[in-house]
Amino acid sequence: MRIALLGGTGDIGEGLALRLAHDTSHEVVIGSRDQEKAESNAEGYETELDSRGIDVTIEGLENPEAAADADVVVAAVPAYHLVDTVEAVADTIPADAVLVSPAVGMKRDEAGFHYNRPGAGSVTALAADAAPDGVAVVGAFHNLPAGRLANLDADLGIDTLLVGDDDDAKSTVADVTEGVEGLRALDAGPLANAAEIEGITPLLINVAQNNDGLHDLGVRFD
Amino acid sequence: MRIALLGGTGDIGEGLALRLAHDTSHEVVIGSRDQEKAESNAEGYETELDSRGIDVTIEGLENPEAAADADVVVAAVPAYHLVDTVEAVADTIPADAVLVSPAVGMKRDEAGFHYNRPGAGSVTALAADAAPDGVAVVGAFHNLPAGRLANLDADLGIDTLLVGDDDDAKSTVADVTEGVEGLRALDAGPLANAAEIEGITPLLINVAQNNDGLHDLGVRFD
Repeated sequence: MRIALLGGTGDIGEGLALRLAHDTSHEVVIGSRDQEKAESNAEGYETELDSRGIDVTIEGLENPEAAADADVVVAAVPAYHLVDTVEAVADTIPADAVLVSPAVGMKRDEAGFHYNRPGAGSVTALAADAAPDGVAVVGAFHNLPAGRLANLDADLGIDTLLVGDDDDAKSTVADVTEGVEGLRALDAGPLANAAEIEGITPLLINVAQNNDGLHDLGVRFD
Repeated sequence: MRIALLGGTGDIGEGLALRLAHDTSHEVVIGSRDQEKAESNAEGYETELDSRGIDVTIEGLENPEAAADADVVVAAVPAYHLVDTVEAVADTIPADAVLVSPAVGMKRDEAGFHYNRPGAGSVTALAADAAPDGVAVVGAFHNLPAGRLANLDADLGIDTLLVGDDDDAKSTVADVTEGVEGLRALDAGPLANAAEIEGITPLLINVAQNNDGLHDLGVRFD
């Protein structure tokens, strides 16, 4: 499959690009608002993979071109860029593509990080509201530790929870996810169940900040 | 230490009573609104422990008497009984006791279970608001799988997150927690960080309901 990582120059995008290109045979495309940045990051990922004996070509394109012809489009951008990013690819994303939303909204106060739940119910719901009619939206990758994901020497051994209202789309994303070594996809039900998943991300930061020796945490359901 | 489990006849109370009495040398007291029920459940726990070669006495008392003389008081009651239960022990709970709140509010719709966040910010905050002045409140045990906890043949290997504004109280609860085999206590910061922890409980149910072979789930931060 062809997987476009919009915002693929950011931290979660980098990790997904490296892991997918390293562990699977999917074709990975990096999208960015800035084509030069997309190309230069894609080249950096190729170099990193080449140093590990993986010879792949990773394209770098502007977001709308990256989404065109993709089977799976991951909006790996911060929550405040999510709607703009989805709207920017509305005319190019294939009608049968799956749009994946990993973004989480957070705010910080003196106690720590907190989930900033949007009026739509969740950030994933914002993505679904902004997506073109017919494009299935799946929430996934919300709670992945970015640094660890991008470090191919680090073991994962963690879970990612999927939510969505289209079972086929969710199954496609589960297959892509489980191609990454050490990443387990679990089904958390319909899209309306996204908020509690997104709320784990600020919690992971709070736990890392309050316990010596813990950082870049993921979560596992056992 | 003397640990009073208010609502110790319920599912989380049963699991905590059995695990604490089995794995630690703490004195466990079962509280209930109904003294006879407290006594009969305590006797059942003693029988279960005796069958495993553990000879302990577990007292069964009404909640106010159970809280008196306790070092740690766990309000192991459903969220809708929490404030009543805390108020019922206000005159008897020692001023230097630690009050532990594991309750979570949930609601259910066609998509699954959802966190029902109270106006106070969290259920743990409700407990803190209801607690007598000076009694330190710690949120803990929110995400424990009740059935597995009460089955002494089942391995845990899971975490519980602690929140609270009194570091000594949190440290006391961490020590009690880590006496239970397979249960790790992690510090999630001040009490204001409780909501995201409480939100994991409905998510655990959603994940169990949507994945074959998964049930009675706990969570681990790795």
